[in-house]
Amino acid sequence: MKIQSTPTLRRMPTYLHRLYTLRNNGAEWVTCADLAIYMSLSHIVVRKDMAMTGLAGNRRYGFRVADLIEAILRFIGWDQKLSATLVGAGSLGSALLGFSEFYDYNLRIESVFDCNPKKIGTQIHNFNIYDINNIKDIFKESPPDIAIICVPSTEAQKVADLLIKLGVKYFWNFANVCLQVPEGVIVQREVIPGGLAVLSAKIKKHRSGEEIDDEI
Amino acid sequence: MKIQSTPTLRRMPTYLHRLYTLRNNGAEWVTCADLAIYMSLSHIVVRKDMAMTGLAGNRRYGFRVADLIEAILRFIGWDQKLSATLVGAGSLGSALLGFSEFYDYNLRIESVFDCNPKKIGTQIHNFNIYDINNIKDIFKESPPDIAIICVPSTEAQKVADLLIKLGVKYFWNFANVCLQVPEGVIVQREVIPGGLAVLSAKIKKHRSGEEIDDEI
Repeated sequence: MKIQSTPTLRRMPTYLHRLYTLRNNGAEWVTCADLAIYMSLSHIVVRKDMAMTGLAGNRRYGFRVADLIEAILRFIGWDQKLSATLVGAGSLGSALLGFSEFYDYNLRIESVFDCNPKKIGTQIHNFNIYDINNIKDIFKESPPDIAIICVPSTEAQKVADLLIKLGVKYFWNFANVCLQVPEGVIVQREVIPGGLAVLSAKIKKHRSGEEIDDEI
Repeated sequence: MKIQSTPTLRRMPTYLHRLYTLRNNGAEWVTCADLAIYMSLSHIVVRKDMAMTGLAGNRRYGFRVADLIEAILRFIGWDQKLSATLVGAGSLGSALLGFSEFYDYNLRIESVFDCNPKKIGTQIHNFNIYDINNIKDIFKESPPDIAIICVPSTEAQKVADLLIKLGVKYFWNFANVCLQVPEGVIVQREVIPGGLAVLSAKIKKHRSGEEIDDEI
């Protein structure tokens, strides 16, 4: 993956959200200009992003909404179902369990684990909370594709080691720690303060009168 | 802000986290190689990131930990205090209120608002939850620098309009909607599924046997 594709990939869920809304409203076509206005981005950024999906637009009408949705899903890899387990049903974990849009992205959270006896056996957003000590039995034959790690940073490496032993290869890590994993295991770390860093840099530029690009 | 600086900025909180740990352990120097190993990044990416802070390293010892912390804080704009209000004390808002590292970034959350009578008057992570209808009185003379928006997407534009009227200029938006704001107002949208898109694209490449760059 080339460095410059990361911001493009990060914008894709927002394009998708807009395209699903347009489709639900019966729109057949969409232009880069429409998307640029909605997202407060320059046309150039949107055009480059769309080019990366490999879909050629119509010079006059733009893109067919249905085709663009399909091209974006394919570009991201959301054209195939991914299963997931979520570990750590605290406030951040609970927030993620409430994200209904994961269904649009073909992600299915199949199990949720915690170690807190007060949480085990309860439900959050209709998900049963299982005891992390029973994880082997719950996984049964095959582990899920992705583990979403929402445990405290002090527990994250231990949980990851356990999941790797059970065959999990892909991690979406929200804990404030860089997981050390063997080759062939992929970790995507979600650093929420990363967005605050981008905003703060923009504020600094704005206050000193410099021009700010609308890049997300 | 140039497009390529966004991933660099997003990585900065992770470098900082590592540097604070090193400082607490009494380390005086750090090399790009150390940081690269910790973050599972290539040396080249780390070297480029460090170059953007403007700090020149020592060819033999690398960077002085204290100097690098200062340079990164200055690069991001975290060398100056920023005040914030958080609106929407649901599970995501609660998770953010529990992030102790905001103090390291010079961000002070000064007030928290919700519209749910069951939450108003209670405390979450030692923050008082105020009634959004009293926001004008709580802000008193001056609004905070940043508003952190954690309300449902259907309410986000209304809340933003209110805050803009009260003088808030900078928004960190977690709601799943692109806020429409007047010129001079800056919105940083936090799209949590953005990280999932990056991970999914990596999974697709991994499964098809393509090489994956360790870019965050």
